[in-house]
Amino acid sequence: MDKPTAVVIGVGAERGVGAAVCRRFAREGCHLLVAGRTQAKIDQVAGTIETSGGSAEAVLTDASQEDQVIRLFDRAMQPGAGRAPADVVVFNAANNKRIDFRELEAQLFEDFWRVACFAGFLAGREAARRLVPLGRGTVIFTGASASLRGKPGYAQFAAAKAGLRMVAQSMARDYGPLGIHVAHVIIDGGIDGDRLRRSAPDAVAARGEDGLLGVEPIAEAYWQIHRQHRSAWTQEIDLRPFKEPF
Amino acid sequence: MDKPTAVVIGVGAERGVGAAVCRRFAREGCHLLVAGRTQAKIDQVAGTIETSGGSAEAVLTDASQEDQVIRLFDRAMQPGAGRAPADVVVFNAANNKRIDFRELEAQLFEDFWRVACFAGFLAGREAARRLVPLGRGTVIFTGASASLRGKPGYAQFAAAKAGLRMVAQSMARDYGPLGIHVAHVIIDGGIDGDRLRRSAPDAVAARGEDGLLGVEPIAEAYWQIHRQHRSAWTQEIDLRPFKEPF
Amino acid sequence: MDKPTAVVIGVGAERGVGAAVCRRFAREGCHLLVAGRTQAKIDQVAGTIETSGGSAEAVLTDASQEDQVIRLFDRAMQPGAGRAPADVVVFNAANNKRIDFRELEAQLFEDFWRVACFAGFLAGREAARRLVPLGRGTVIFTGASASLRGKPGYAQFAAAKAGLRMVAQSMARDYGPLGIHVAHVIIDGGIDGDRLRRSAPDAVAARGEDGLLGVEPIAEAYWQIHRQHRSAWTQEIDLRPFKEPF
Amino acid sequence: MDKPTAVVIGVGAERGVGAAVCRRFAREGCHLLVAGRTQAKIDQVAGTIETSGGSAEAVLTDASQEDQVIRLFDRAMQPGAGRAPADVVVFNAANNKRIDFRELEAQLFEDFWRVACFAGFLAGREAARRLVPLGRGTVIFTGASASLRGKPGYAQFAAAKAGLRMVAQSMARDYGPLGIHVAHVIIDGGIDGDRLRRSAPDAVAARGEDGLLGVEPIAEAYWQIHRQHRSAWTQEIDLRPFKEPF
Repeated sequence: MDKPTAVVIGVGAERGVGAAVCRRFAREGCHLLVAGRTQAKIDQVAGTIETSGGSAEAVLTDASQEDQVIRLFDRAMQPGAGRAPADVVVFNAANNKRIDFRELEAQLFEDFWRVACFAGFLAGREAARRLVPLGRGTVIFTGASASLRGKPGYAQFAAAKAGLRMVAQSMARDYGPLGIHVAHVIIDGGIDGDRLRRSAPDAVAARGEDGLLGVEPIAEAYWQIHRQHRSAWTQEIDLRPFKEPF
Repeated sequence: MDKPTAVVIGVGAERGVGAAVCRRFAREGCHLLVAGRTQAKIDQVAGTIETSGGSAEAVLTDASQEDQVIRLFDRAMQPGAGRAPADVVVFNAANNKRIDFRELEAQLFEDFWRVACFAGFLAGREAARRLVPLGRGTVIFTGASASLRGKPGYAQFAAAKAGLRMVAQSMARDYGPLGIHVAHVIIDGGIDGDRLRRSAPDAVAARGEDGLLGVEPIAEAYWQIHRQHRSAWTQEIDLRPFKEPF
Repeated sequence: MDKPTAVVIGVGAERGVGAAVCRRFAREGCHLLVAGRTQAKIDQVAGTIETSGGSAEAVLTDASQEDQVIRLFDRAMQPGAGRAPADVVVFNAANNKRIDFRELEAQLFEDFWRVACFAGFLAGREAARRLVPLGRGTVIFTGASASLRGKPGYAQFAAAKAGLRMVAQSMARDYGPLGIHVAHVIIDGGIDGDRLRRSAPDAVAARGEDGLLGVEPIAEAYWQIHRQHRSAWTQEIDLRPFKEPF
Repeated sequence: MDKPTAVVIGVGAERGVGAAVCRRFAREGCHLLVAGRTQAKIDQVAGTIETSGGSAEAVLTDASQEDQVIRLFDRAMQPGAGRAPADVVVFNAANNKRIDFRELEAQLFEDFWRVACFAGFLAGREAARRLVPLGRGTVIFTGASASLRGKPGYAQFAAAKAGLRMVAQSMARDYGPLGIHVAHVIIDGGIDGDRLRRSAPDAVAARGEDGLLGVEPIAEAYWQIHRQHRSAWTQEIDLRPFKEPF
């Protein structure tokens, strides 16, 4: 039987959510399309999977460019040697940074939206176009606490993430009855990944053991969502470290 | 090694959420305390587990009676022959029925609350009292779409379920940092169980295949919540059939 | 023309939300039924209104007792000398206190519910029974931030308030189309009333000018809700001091 | 004393929310800056106000263009003959249209965002830059039910409106304590304005009397929000016709 194919959009460092999701799905026998903006990073993630006996290919993709997203999906849906057209799509791209609202440049507000929301729309629409005719598939969007709440310094992030959440919710209402499982994962807390370890090592240390979200446990949740029986699908789930105030 | 023990409160028919959760946890090697109001039903659920090679005992419990809840937890926390004190508690009790608001008798409004909310408080408090000193454990509450929205004819149900949700949320904020995983599962849709099959067989048939929530997939979600790593715990998750409008 | 009649349930100290709402509606020419559990307090509130040229009567009422609520509504709907049957009902009763969850006695959990939720149901049901046949009227429930979120130490309060919110929401969906305006006011923050001034004078002082919710501005919001045109009714509104973090 | 100045962004037809808000604030003695994309429409709105003895000026503004928004605020904050710098800003711009998600062109998704969310950010940021130093002012954003929920056919609208809501919420948390009142009005239902009357006259008729949101009652709510005392500010309020299911 052909391997199922999974597309993960927004893959960066090995120790990041995108990469962990790739590895988790590869472990279950999926062929992975590892999509991200940095060739070296996606090559490394795909390489690690191949080295562990899995199957993966890196696809350089700027997810905010419509033609690149279409090309990625063209490739994903093309059955290849021993693999079936994609039936799992994970959208995980986003920037994040605290910026004082009054200092926030218009271009930056737009950039946040373009990477986290507009790109998510493009991925969601392409996924819908390709999966609905097949009547099956899973589309998972990565959200954040900012998807639900706007906080000082994060208007640009919250505006983008809340928009993405509405894309996911609209899709779920539209395509759930047509057999497409659309889910939104609210990641509430700092992620124990390369980004934070490099930018704020003291903060990471101060959180103590398991005080930040582990990327492997996050990836596990994505896998479990994909596995759900269609009689009990999850549309929204939150994930946070046990210590996280909320 | 001793078997882990799970307590499920609000177990009725074999084809119901409570019973399915019991079976799911038993399959993973847990000893089950099957708590419900009807001796024959909980005996049957426990019997099925034992027959399948699992370990279970039926504990007749009116979950709205404080002394009975305390007694249940005394038993649950007492290590027995080959089993450890409980570290999973599932609260699943509730009534449901459409009642015109102006016809709603005060006693009925109270009964709904007593079964779904007050009993949930008692279970939650006893769980907290017993688990916090151990610094580990999972407590899962069964919610409903009515936990979030009040609809005509369901004020009594929504008022009870929304109250229960606040108990769960308060506990999560209090005890998450102490190592207790408290989760709330929003079941949004009709359940394909004995209750609905008996009361509305035509409605069940009209929904088509997988048009109602399967009890086994629901139970699977409970198990996955229990399995989560503490660096990525879920506090709230929804479950609904793929066809369900929401 | 007869004076319109307003019923306010849960009136205590002069400097409290209930009393302020009474005075606000009296100032607009309403006859007030001042309902509360303490004769001296409701007498004082009614007296102040009468002294200022308004019209009011104190009605001793334990709002958690069905017969007393029915009696109150019998009186409210009985047109009197120069006054019409009631067309405004405000439900404002509640206790509040921080209690450690594991120390929370079952009776206390029930008491909180009985005062804030069960009594609200009784008032709401009686209001619906009396107002729906007339096809007009306003019913306003006092909520709190705990209506939406459960926090450590406040499970008993949140469970009651979230239940009350569902009563309000169910009623709004049921009776809005029949001409009854049902609203829920989320009061988010400390109230600058007698209760807090007596129990925590230092905390009050520390908040600075307008750092707590003024009872007159709260009452103003209730009045404005009542005045709304039926083509643009509010079901839920929040009120908080400008300094309040949220 | 100088007249207070109000800026309303997103003014179109006379029978529309923007125009009604202008008239309502003018009636209270404000000088109005009537900002919109169509010269003829804003001239008419300003003209009607002047004819009724009020004070208004039309300012042609494409609210999605940063330089035009900055110019509008430069003018608004410049005290003029007999008028003070603006202390009320209403942002009301948005498109709306049902579009099948799979048919949704990327450019359209972006256009919706640019008009309803990006423009709202520009207005909000300029308002914050100008009002924070003064320590006073009100900023009101027009939302919709789509600000909270994504429905089939409205992903583009919901994504934009949910983003705008996060801008409002972030601003409220940031600037409330600095004396700026930031509110978000959720308009849930069809508006009885020129747009709907022209595009769907039968649907309007079918709703019956007051079955759609009246623009004057909506404008009244905006005025009442502006009038609120800072000890009891509203951050979010919903408005819907009495008949509207929700």
